[in-house]
Amino acid sequence: MSIGDVQALTFDVFGTVVDYYSTIRSEGERLAQQKGLQIDWGAFALAWRNRYNPFLQRVEQHELPWTKLDTLHRLALEEVLSEFQITHLTEEEKVQLNRVWHRLQPWPDSVAGLIRLRQKFVLATLSNGNVALLTNMAKYSSLPWDCILSAELVRAYKPNPAVYQMAIEFLDLPAEQIMLVAAHPYDLLAAQSHGFKTAFIPRPLEYGPQSDPHPDSTPNPSFDVVAHDMIDLAHQLGV
Amino acid sequence: MSIGDVQALTFDVFGTVVDYYSTIRSEGERLAQQKGLQIDWGAFALAWRNRYNPFLQRVEQHELPWTKLDTLHRLALEEVLSEFQITHLTEEEKVQLNRVWHRLQPWPDSVAGLIRLRQKFVLATLSNGNVALLTNMAKYSSLPWDCILSAELVRAYKPNPAVYQMAIEFLDLPAEQIMLVAAHPYDLLAAQSHGFKTAFIPRPLEYGPQSDPHPDSTPNPSFDVVAHDMIDLAHQLGV
Repeated sequence: MSIGDVQALTFDVFGTVVDYYSTIRSEGERLAQQKGLQIDWGAFALAWRNRYNPFLQRVEQHELPWTKLDTLHRLALEEVLSEFQITHLTEEEKVQLNRVWHRLQPWPDSVAGLIRLRQKFVLATLSNGNVALLTNMAKYSSLPWDCILSAELVRAYKPNPAVYQMAIEFLDLPAEQIMLVAAHPYDLLAAQSHGFKTAFIPRPLEYGPQSDPHPDSTPNPSFDVVAHDMIDLAHQLGV
Repeated sequence: MSIGDVQALTFDVFGTVVDYYSTIRSEGERLAQQKGLQIDWGAFALAWRNRYNPFLQRVEQHELPWTKLDTLHRLALEEVLSEFQITHLTEEEKVQLNRVWHRLQPWPDSVAGLIRLRQKFVLATLSNGNVALLTNMAKYSSLPWDCILSAELVRAYKPNPAVYQMAIEFLDLPAEQIMLVAAHPYDLLAAQSHGFKTAFIPRPLEYGPQSDPHPDSTPNPSFDVVAHDMIDLAHQLGV
């Protein structure tokens, strides 16, 4: 089957659709003003996100029981607060800070691109975020999903095969009629191994403007589409 | 907790949000014109829907393995076609007719009411329809869900407790902050037994204008809200 047969687009969310680095930095800076903190909030954002994969690994390797991403974010937050020697936040302030993942801002092209893509395709998340996180984020940032698909539905994290198989089952389409859109080659390669079509959107600013190393933006030749943003993706998919 | 603490509204869909009787009758009449059939399509719609509960029962009692509602609709359709002596539909025509459940029209108040309610609440389906059915219907009929929650996610049909518990888990809210909106007392009573708030919207035309018996429109005194339609519900919930 060709790209012209694709019926549904599924999306990685963190980094691909929304910009966690800038959102966390901005919210952190506002909090710092209130609390009189001197922190490099860009570094804070990256330190928090860098704990993401190790925590997911611990769940996938059954060192931890199934745990929602909200809760893993909170466990990681405690470590990062300690690392940055931030010791005087109230419980309410920590809850509010942890909920920043529900308020992540879209990249400037995301909403406009998704609105165009939605005219032709079913749009679903396919994210490690839990259902409530993804639902609240969509409401907060006006992301026009038709359907929230989450790792939480199968209690396994990408790239666990169960997550991709779940999308095939619930969208009730052959894998070849589903495309994964992501900024991360590992995710696309996993989806491809289950038969999905793939669209790669490099997000060079995912780790911020001065990041070193930069995100991997080399498209694998096997990817079906390489687009520079969501609007370009809509254009390439004929919407 | 009071009604003022409700954060998310979950909705029964068939009969409560959409009008299967009129949609099936209209689509049937169009098909009849093409095929030269003389059928009472209102009676056909009811005969099809009347097979719904017996088929769900067979799944719930493990006489059938887990089966998506799309497939149960197709099994029931074969029986109804036989009952109405419709013998000359092609496979493609049957597939198209069975997909009418993906194209059900909303009651006249539904979309306007949901748009208002969405300003204040998370709106999720809580339906026995499978995920693809509910997602396609929302797209076709412009139902502004924030999240598709389906019996399919837990492979059990309402009023199985697993379905209500799933909503609590995935919305990540205490049951008392979730309201079920439904036209069917049995569904509301089941939700209530799990701690949900309840809103009853009688739909006297669910089985068509001449139905006998009429749908049960007697509110149980324990229901938190009784509304005559979705717009009235929005009004009563302060949106």
